[in-house]
Amino acid sequence: MRATVMHAAGDVRIENLPDASLRDPTDALVRVMRACICGSDLWPYNLKEPGGPPQRMGHEAIGIVEAVGSDVATLKAGDVVVMPFTSSDGTCVFCHEGLNTACVHVRFFGNGGDMEGAQAEALRVPQADGTLFPLRVGADEALMPSLLTLSDVMATGHHAAVVAKAGPGRIAAVIGDGAVGLCGVIAAKRLGAERIIILGHHADRIALAKKFGATDVVSERGDEAVARVMELSGGFGAHSVLECVGTEQAMTTSVGIARPGGSIGRVGVPHYEAIPSSLPAFFKNVSVGGGPAPVRAYIADLLPDVLDGRIEPGQVFDQIMGLEEVPNGYRAMNERRSIKVMVKP
Amino acid sequence: MRATVMHAAGDVRIENLPDASLRDPTDALVRVMRACICGSDLWPYNLKEPGGPPQRMGHEAIGIVEAVGSDVATLKAGDVVVMPFTSSDGTCVFCHEGLNTACVHVRFFGNGGDMEGAQAEALRVPQADGTLFPLRVGADEALMPSLLTLSDVMATGHHAAVVAKAGPGRIAAVIGDGAVGLCGVIAAKRLGAERIIILGHHADRIALAKKFGATDVVSERGDEAVARVMELSGGFGAHSVLECVGTEQAMTTSVGIARPGGSIGRVGVPHYEAIPSSLPAFFKNVSVGGGPAPVRAYIADLLPDVLDGRIEPGQVFDQIMGLEEVPNGYRAMNERRSIKVMVKP
Repeated sequence: MRATVMHAAGDVRIENLPDASLRDPTDALVRVMRACICGSDLWPYNLKEPGGPPQRMGHEAIGIVEAVGSDVATLKAGDVVVMPFTSSDGTCVFCHEGLNTACVHVRFFGNGGDMEGAQAEALRVPQADGTLFPLRVGADEALMPSLLTLSDVMATGHHAAVVAKAGPGRIAAVIGDGAVGLCGVIAAKRLGAERIIILGHHADRIALAKKFGATDVVSERGDEAVARVMELSGGFGAHSVLECVGTEQAMTTSVGIARPGGSIGRVGVPHYEAIPSSLPAFFKNVSVGGGPAPVRAYIADLLPDVLDGRIEPGQVFDQIMGLEEVPNGYRAMNERRSIKVMVKP
Repeated sequence: MRATVMHAAGDVRIENLPDASLRDPTDALVRVMRACICGSDLWPYNLKEPGGPPQRMGHEAIGIVEAVGSDVATLKAGDVVVMPFTSSDGTCVFCHEGLNTACVHVRFFGNGGDMEGAQAEALRVPQADGTLFPLRVGADEALMPSLLTLSDVMATGHHAAVVAKAGPGRIAAVIGDGAVGLCGVIAAKRLGAERIIILGHHADRIALAKKFGATDVVSERGDEAVARVMELSGGFGAHSVLECVGTEQAMTTSVGIARPGGSIGRVGVPHYEAIPSSLPAFFKNVSVGGGPAPVRAYIADLLPDVLDGRIEPGQVFDQIMGLEEVPNGYRAMNERRSIKVMVKP
């Protein structure tokens, strides 16, 4: 089968690999209907050292179950499923608490080792019962793009909004106008935030943010961005800050714009050693939370709104391409020519 | 009048100063009945550079109102009051939200500038209506030590427990066996925590922690402490971590022992530039919150339990001394010969 493999920074290839197959009795074999390129895929695309083990890529998908292992109870061949970006057993205490990304058996797809990737024709999904979320839709479903975002990007934006306690009467600020930030805008609006300030400076993305419910735009950076958010929020800052980037600068800005007593929900994988701006966060009683979104648990919350068309996160996809074009997709996203690429193997 | 003045590290003196007096119409003049030496007073006691402006010390007190300015509406001469460690106007949006330490007019007592200190015979209290909490007790009240802790240390331990979401069915871990940590144990128990692990290694303090409700003691430090807490908590860590120290090591340990999805409430003034251990906190979805406790708002919650004797935080005082002995009190606390000193001017 054909699958995407990252060899080193800038060196992503579509290769012939042995067909995906069942290995453990709890596995499912999933044929990929739609996959994505994720902003987080750009980190190895920019930083992966040459000489390391090649890494299969892709952790977001909708697919059709082709076969299941003997211990899989809730899925059967033909089921259309959402695949969250991690596997989870569905039975441990963390899965029961709705924090599937802390599952005692959690594994990240497309992240090296023996975990396969979704930017491929098919893949092996461990712990299928606890991992895959079955949908009652056909393969021709028009809502497919929005459903696909439930595998990561919409659920991740939602996580940022939940941790940041976005809600009625509160001002939310979303740092980052990438696909996650844009989904953060959708999530903040969905949770009832009174005002939603997007911090970003790409015209196409800002336009989409406004369509999704952003009420204000801050295109400045650093201290100027902080000053502008303060101005927009009556001098006090935002109650809820959705940090959707992961850089030290983004976190420093998050602390700077957070209202005293406010909450920062961070979902950008941190590319810093320690959380900066400790003292301002302390003296303002600002909390910093977040992490990998428990996608599996959130799908049930978000799915009705997608099926009813109340939210349309699928609009973040501005390019659709086949598997062989995936290297071009990485380039387009890395050069900010594309917000998010959908892959149709 | 006599008052405590810090000139430089190790150089704390009791001096003759002009009598405290009203300045603004919103002031109260308070005669100090009881004050304290705080663990945070030891930071300037160890670090204050010589040559800087001398600093009046003390930010915790119970006192009697001697006089009030013309704009003070809720207090009168003769009232016995608790003085929180900051002043607050009582009218701004943050005071209304119960976050008095973010009051738009917040000032810290005993912290330099024109703010006076409570380790003195008397002091001027700005914004008296919004700052002072009147008690219906006499000057001979037997519960005075416990009431005194409502000015800071008990309210601060409570804040750590609230931010760390201590509660039924949850394991709390308290880092630090100082007076705040000990009050954190009281607070975690009061909020219903199922198990309370105290991390500390001073025999007298640990004994008190057990009396207050600690169920387990970890006297190891660093990685060994983390391993021990993991062992005690079924391998997952503590749901609620009360960080009552403020060092980088304490925060690293906090992240290390926090259960996935758990919360760290930090109340020790951070003596680090950035919050360490960012990645483990992120991948575990652990939130870090806390800051200066909104004492003024918490007194109403805690007071009934003090008056009914359900909690006895006054037991943290193991030395009582007059004003002239305060320099000895600093020495005793700094050398860990005393948990907390009560000052009786």
